[in-house]
Amino acid sequence: MLEAKLARKKHANDRSSIVISGDCRVGGKELLLIGGPCAIEDMDQMKEVARVLSTSSINAIRGGLFKPRTSPYAFQGLGADGLTIVEETRKISGMPFVSEVMSKEHLDIALDHLDILQVGSRNMQNFELLKALGKTDKPILLKRGLSSTIEELILAAEYIMAEGNEKVILCERGIRSYDQSTRNVLDLGAVAVLKQMTHLPVLVDPSHAAGRADIIPDLSRAAIACGADGLIIEAHPVPERSVSDAKQALTLPELCELIHSLDGIARAVGRSLPAPKRIPARKVA
Amino acid sequence: MLEAKLARKKHANDRSSIVISGDCRVGGKELLLIGGPCAIEDMDQMKEVARVLSTSSINAIRGGLFKPRTSPYAFQGLGADGLTIVEETRKISGMPFVSEVMSKEHLDIALDHLDILQVGSRNMQNFELLKALGKTDKPILLKRGLSSTIEELILAAEYIMAEGNEKVILCERGIRSYDQSTRNVLDLGAVAVLKQMTHLPVLVDPSHAAGRADIIPDLSRAAIACGADGLIIEAHPVPERSVSDAKQALTLPELCELIHSLDGIARAVGRSLPAPKRIPARKVA
Amino acid sequence: MLEAKLARKKHANDRSSIVISGDCRVGGKELLLIGGPCAIEDMDQMKEVARVLSTSSINAIRGGLFKPRTSPYAFQGLGADGLTIVEETRKISGMPFVSEVMSKEHLDIALDHLDILQVGSRNMQNFELLKALGKTDKPILLKRGLSSTIEELILAAEYIMAEGNEKVILCERGIRSYDQSTRNVLDLGAVAVLKQMTHLPVLVDPSHAAGRADIIPDLSRAAIACGADGLIIEAHPVPERSVSDAKQALTLPELCELIHSLDGIARAVGRSLPAPKRIPARKVA
Amino acid sequence: MLEAKLARKKHANDRSSIVISGDCRVGGKELLLIGGPCAIEDMDQMKEVARVLSTSSINAIRGGLFKPRTSPYAFQGLGADGLTIVEETRKISGMPFVSEVMSKEHLDIALDHLDILQVGSRNMQNFELLKALGKTDKPILLKRGLSSTIEELILAAEYIMAEGNEKVILCERGIRSYDQSTRNVLDLGAVAVLKQMTHLPVLVDPSHAAGRADIIPDLSRAAIACGADGLIIEAHPVPERSVSDAKQALTLPELCELIHSLDGIARAVGRSLPAPKRIPARKVA
Repeated sequence: MLEAKLARKKHANDRSSIVISGDCRVGGKELLLIGGPCAIEDMDQMKEVARVLSTSSINAIRGGLFKPRTSPYAFQGLGADGLTIVEETRKISGMPFVSEVMSKEHLDIALDHLDILQVGSRNMQNFELLKALGKTDKPILLKRGLSSTIEELILAAEYIMAEGNEKVILCERGIRSYDQSTRNVLDLGAVAVLKQMTHLPVLVDPSHAAGRADIIPDLSRAAIACGADGLIIEAHPVPERSVSDAKQALTLPELCELIHSLDGIARAVGRSLPAPKRIPARKVA
Repeated sequence: MLEAKLARKKHANDRSSIVISGDCRVGGKELLLIGGPCAIEDMDQMKEVARVLSTSSINAIRGGLFKPRTSPYAFQGLGADGLTIVEETRKISGMPFVSEVMSKEHLDIALDHLDILQVGSRNMQNFELLKALGKTDKPILLKRGLSSTIEELILAAEYIMAEGNEKVILCERGIRSYDQSTRNVLDLGAVAVLKQMTHLPVLVDPSHAAGRADIIPDLSRAAIACGADGLIIEAHPVPERSVSDAKQALTLPELCELIHSLDGIARAVGRSLPAPKRIPARKVA
Repeated sequence: MLEAKLARKKHANDRSSIVISGDCRVGGKELLLIGGPCAIEDMDQMKEVARVLSTSSINAIRGGLFKPRTSPYAFQGLGADGLTIVEETRKISGMPFVSEVMSKEHLDIALDHLDILQVGSRNMQNFELLKALGKTDKPILLKRGLSSTIEELILAAEYIMAEGNEKVILCERGIRSYDQSTRNVLDLGAVAVLKQMTHLPVLVDPSHAAGRADIIPDLSRAAIACGADGLIIEAHPVPERSVSDAKQALTLPELCELIHSLDGIARAVGRSLPAPKRIPARKVA
Repeated sequence: MLEAKLARKKHANDRSSIVISGDCRVGGKELLLIGGPCAIEDMDQMKEVARVLSTSSINAIRGGLFKPRTSPYAFQGLGADGLTIVEETRKISGMPFVSEVMSKEHLDIALDHLDILQVGSRNMQNFELLKALGKTDKPILLKRGLSSTIEELILAAEYIMAEGNEKVILCERGIRSYDQSTRNVLDLGAVAVLKQMTHLPVLVDPSHAAGRADIIPDLSRAAIACGADGLIIEAHPVPERSVSDAKQALTLPELCELIHSLDGIARAVGRSLPAPKRIPARKVA
């Protein structure tokens, strides 16, 4: 790994803390907790997401504008039409927004509206895209490819950093394996190894690893205990109506409850949860 | 999974608690924490293991009598010659002893000297061995095969249970994958799914998953946070002199420190560590 | 691989030819072609198998006495009750018989009645079984484990050879992978590598690799073109009535047709098909 | 697979034959045999490739202009500077030229100079690229992703076809697995399944599957025996001087000899080799 000049650790305690926006950071003591639906569907959906999640320690919102779908005939996302919803969600929630881009064209459309640009698993080695993202100054959430090695993931980060953008956040999201009980196998050993090898923050996406809602809380707690710098979790106001990935989406209250349950684990490993943006109405009463 | 009549859960809170020996149990609130070397090498080694680990919350000791080695020319374990060491270790430590058997012949030799009989990954579907173990009344630690599905693991447990022995403890120990950064990939999703599907206790072996000592503490904490009922971890008085698996063995003080660090995680998920057998000398002073 | 003293090649053209029985050999110019059902079910079934296959170039018959089944409640084979059927099949067909043993007990029961003793995938690293087989003088058909490396397979052969029995036939039968289109992934690269590394004959089992009858002819032709020394293929008089592995069994005429189609491929790589034991009735007319 | 409206077979004998250029086709009786180096390095290299390969049944030439390299600091290909070499090679050899594009920018640069546009494994699900290729009228060589399912591969083809370009050639090139003996595992079962499911031609790339030159001839023969419509094989005038993938490149004479050895296999499965463009000098004498 001599080649990962920029991504590799220079000394044992070398840790990068990346500013997302305002006081939202990743890589320090406070966790980055991202929640939201697979795809942006309409304004009401995202308003509800913003309203409920802002009462929890979730401190960033996700929602797909451009959706990489296995079939060309499946819903491909709202694209540019979703940008007003993104802007409204950011305004209502006061939280940064994360969404995936799959090409330079997407980047041109969405750059000014997003706080974190996500590279999906299928594009982890889309080197032309990585180079283009390296020329922006936005934080990049780089998801591990479906069966990428740890070295390949670090070198994909290096592609972005070599172009000048060092704000790369790595993300373990499960690797492909033979057992059909879960969609993928969450590789927390990779999280531990990444923290040994690089100074970059490492998030975990338990939703795409599990592919089923019931074990996401267990995997989320495991990820934080393992040293992850945060989580990105799918949630939807009405999961069974979700246009994609319905089986793995939590309800919004389930996500809030899960996030709440992380507090003891986070403390046990020297981390803390972000303060909620808003006090839940029922507690005011 | 209709076929797993005995292993599967009958209702959501169906959890078996298995008595190991004395007040040592697994499957309840208190964790089962097993430590010790890959192979029993000599009396001094095991006395040192017993002495040091009894000052920690480790509550069972492991050590291989019969070693399944990839090469026929590698050290195959002390076999029957190691039994006096097993007995001495049990006496000194006051803790139950865990060791692997690979055939009915091994079982005849070791049955009376062991508190938990381990089935190794390579023998998870050695059905003749499973049937023989089903006719004993000792707890069985059944390790997941190198690339077994969760269903295959549960049905291997069912082979033992169908013969009359329902004291089966499942163990996730990593599955084979493509990345050479770790020896195997620890599949904590399997732990969560097993806890959904069966009432049997589930342990985690982070040592064989990692194959490297440095990430074992992170994986151990993740396993407990995920809901595992305990851990089995390799440690050796002088890891670099270990006759097998040297790279993944912790030193005894490293293991004690790791176990100590589990306390906060265990509490956060409603579990507790066993009380140490002995107060460390330095704390008396 | 310095450790595989006995199994590894000593020079580039080092090739072992193993006598099975009579003029049936494996590892020379003539291929070893084994056909028959997954499990021995009754006398009529095996008589029909013997009758039809003896008109083809099939030169050995398979049929399971002891079946390693994932579930303890599935049919486990006729066991010792099937031995008279084995003897009758050998007599009628004039062909050697291949069947799996899973323990020393099985070996004691079946040794005198079988011409090739098979070690199944689940037992490739059942070292106590391998050692017991090494003390016999029968050819051993050693199947690759479900996710064994090539090195592990060669060292499993070495376990048998180190006990004195050098008549080991290796068998590639597909490795576990993520795609559900086929039961396993046939790894013909392993066949080519095994032929580079060892002097032992290498068979291919396309049936367990495919798990579906329709692609078995293509895989069989590929295996011979790749340099395999023979094939072991499942066939049944009435596949849909097979008690196990029904989807992957060919009908007996399909197997005969497939074997016939291998002739041109075999010649193209300098090999030959065995002569049929019997001239088909219709050709006499 | 109802979704693959365009790619799936409509009836058992539904087979597409695609015109590459002149009388070069793929999907009919005659095989498509592509050879050449991983990367275009200089004019002399490609002239030598053209000169030697035109004496064999190789009927198309490959050479990378844009190289997807794991590290950003590795040689990334000559890019647009290599186009004059491509043109000269086409002229000298009289053969179509195959090269990979990784983005719309690459496509704009190279479209007019290439006869087949290759999509590499890393970009199999780069859907924006697939859509752009679907708007061209050039044949597309679509390589299977590193751990793509067969269904995902077919639906990636469907992305291209849904935009109007039905000239898609599928390519199996090995999938990622755990054994380090070969770079990847060649999945010939996938070739057989693809031929059952779609009408599209299917090539095999034994070079990237093997990652080592010594077993490429065996895998090539296996692929043709299995029903593949052709091969794409790496060869270099001086493999040890190759800037990338040196271990898997054949010498040019080795490739010619390998292609020659395919003749008997091809005939045995009802296929034929293309006629050489040029009679080798030594045979004229």
